[in-house]
Amino acid sequence: MTATAEHPTVERLSALQALLPEGALALITDLVDVRWLTGLQSSNAAVVVGADDASIITDFRYQSVAAPIAAAAGIELIIDADLVKRAAEIAVHVGAASLLVAKDKTTLADDVKLTEGLGDGIARVAGPRLVSKLRAVKTPDEIERIAAAQALADDAFREVVIDRGITGLSEREVALALEIAMRSRGAEAVSFEPIVAAGAHGALPHAHPRDVTIPKDELVVIDWGAQLDGYCSDCTRTVATGKIDEQRHTVHEVVRAAQVAALAEITAGADCKGVDGVARALIAGEGYGDYFGHGLGHGVGLEVHEGPTLSPRGTGELEAGNIVTVEPGIYLPGEFGVRVEELVVVTAGEPRVLTGLPREAILVG
Amino acid sequence: MTATAEHPTVERLSALQALLPEGALALITDLVDVRWLTGLQSSNAAVVVGADDASIITDFRYQSVAAPIAAAAGIELIIDADLVKRAAEIAVHVGAASLLVAKDKTTLADDVKLTEGLGDGIARVAGPRLVSKLRAVKTPDEIERIAAAQALADDAFREVVIDRGITGLSEREVALALEIAMRSRGAEAVSFEPIVAAGAHGALPHAHPRDVTIPKDELVVIDWGAQLDGYCSDCTRTVATGKIDEQRHTVHEVVRAAQVAALAEITAGADCKGVDGVARALIAGEGYGDYFGHGLGHGVGLEVHEGPTLSPRGTGELEAGNIVTVEPGIYLPGEFGVRVEELVVVTAGEPRVLTGLPREAILVG
Repeated sequence: MTATAEHPTVERLSALQALLPEGALALITDLVDVRWLTGLQSSNAAVVVGADDASIITDFRYQSVAAPIAAAAGIELIIDADLVKRAAEIAVHVGAASLLVAKDKTTLADDVKLTEGLGDGIARVAGPRLVSKLRAVKTPDEIERIAAAQALADDAFREVVIDRGITGLSEREVALALEIAMRSRGAEAVSFEPIVAAGAHGALPHAHPRDVTIPKDELVVIDWGAQLDGYCSDCTRTVATGKIDEQRHTVHEVVRAAQVAALAEITAGADCKGVDGVARALIAGEGYGDYFGHGLGHGVGLEVHEGPTLSPRGTGELEAGNIVTVEPGIYLPGEFGVRVEELVVVTAGEPRVLTGLPREAILVG
Repeated sequence: MTATAEHPTVERLSALQALLPEGALALITDLVDVRWLTGLQSSNAAVVVGADDASIITDFRYQSVAAPIAAAAGIELIIDADLVKRAAEIAVHVGAASLLVAKDKTTLADDVKLTEGLGDGIARVAGPRLVSKLRAVKTPDEIERIAAAQALADDAFREVVIDRGITGLSEREVALALEIAMRSRGAEAVSFEPIVAAGAHGALPHAHPRDVTIPKDELVVIDWGAQLDGYCSDCTRTVATGKIDEQRHTVHEVVRAAQVAALAEITAGADCKGVDGVARALIAGEGYGDYFGHGLGHGVGLEVHEGPTLSPRGTGELEAGNIVTVEPGIYLPGEFGVRVEELVVVTAGEPRVLTGLPREAILVG
């Protein structure tokens, strides 16, 4: 591999190579992992990485795009539609001791091909997804890309929700307007279908926007994100279209307090499960423990859901450079829901908050 | 299960149950298969189907949405985030002889859970995806939904490309305008990111739209689709922004002739590989055999790529009710590309063409 240390592919492959046991090849089949490692966007591609070399395998359709990528990174390009079969052939060809695959990204069908192709001499080792761990820690460049995606999404929200107002429009109209506002500002896609959920519909954490008019004097959960140069943003605000009753006000305050408490815990070295626990305990202490049914947060990067995970099932500790959401919620079935979500960068000190919008129940028209 | 024969879930589960061996349960984990079977749209759900009962498993977030779906279909709803572990428990609980899983949808990580959960008494049988075969044959209702999605996409194309013209706009502007035109007409999403690829960029079959101005007197490949009520459309046209040279004209004629030849073969009982071969032979006969590197077509439904597959690796025969694309292409690297794609319904006679646009190199402004 040519030594061009500034090339992200070279740096990222080196980081991956440092994780490989002696004699092992790693087969990377997750398409976002392939994109993160090489920059190649393809619906059929894999990377095979050894101690001091690497290959991209993809099919005919991506040859013209992949060739300059491989050349710039000084790695081999192989055109073959059967990625897994070809990876096994490479392992045999170089006399690898083992081929590492991700256990949650390798299907039983692929495994049959690997087992056949590798024969008895080479161990097929199923383990964790090696690239996830690397992707979870963002470079300064990646942090600025995600910050830019969030700033773009903030601007779209200001235009569509705060400036224009949403009362009397349908949830679907607002969702589409948010999407158009993000796309017109340069986002190549939304991170996910925007959620715009008024009143009782807001009690569904993953509600689909309906052809239903948003009423006056109600809470509306809005969860939206932009994808810009591949990187995602993710944010939620619960806005008020007029006066809201005491219960709605109280629940919104509890959610915000849970968020503030969790944000105070977020720093390099913090326990992922523990951070979730702080928000959860506060909500439970206010009597809403049964109504916060999802995890506190998740990593965001090339995918809108990636590592690390802040939840009761979270493992490990936060690292500087992680970018995570902090999104407590309370969902009262048949009544309403509240969620407030910040996107933050973990540092050795206080987290850097990427979202630039107020957190209270913003009064909108 | 309550006998309500008109309910699509009941009918679809019955069709699946007819495929099960004695004593077997099937575990369906593909989320589109789950949607097709039950109507449930979820990011974490599975269906377990036995000879005369079925259960939906999903997590807390989808409880409110899943409950009425399960009730209407007369099947059980189980709230558990660990779908695979719970499925194994169900198999043990009912004393199943085997649990069938799809080999290309089951990961090694899931397989560990299944093997542990099932113990020695119940066989874990990895086989083909049972629901794919069922989904490939569309009901009359599904055909009309896909026809409606295609008609909507046709209208968007007429507005954005034919009426407004594209010369002088960037590829990305045209792609976004197509998307907005489809969404404004009621599409909930695009089937895929539209391809708008001028000149040499059109030689990449899966080109991403660039911030590059579309020139006059060039061919532009436009491949776009709408998703409407879940169902996808898919269409490609190669348009001319003015005068094109003899070679471009000839290549466009060859592609169209290949399409006409393939369409003449499409009928219930036709061999999937053979239909591809007819188009491929015509293109090869004109000297462009090296420049048609992808399959002729694929099924379209809830997903924009599903069965059956028309390609040199295709297997089986077309059935009445299949909806497939017919999309030959010729890609001359560094020069230009041409692809023309029709969406058709397979019948016992001639195919019903769902696309309502002319096929020639439409002259646009």
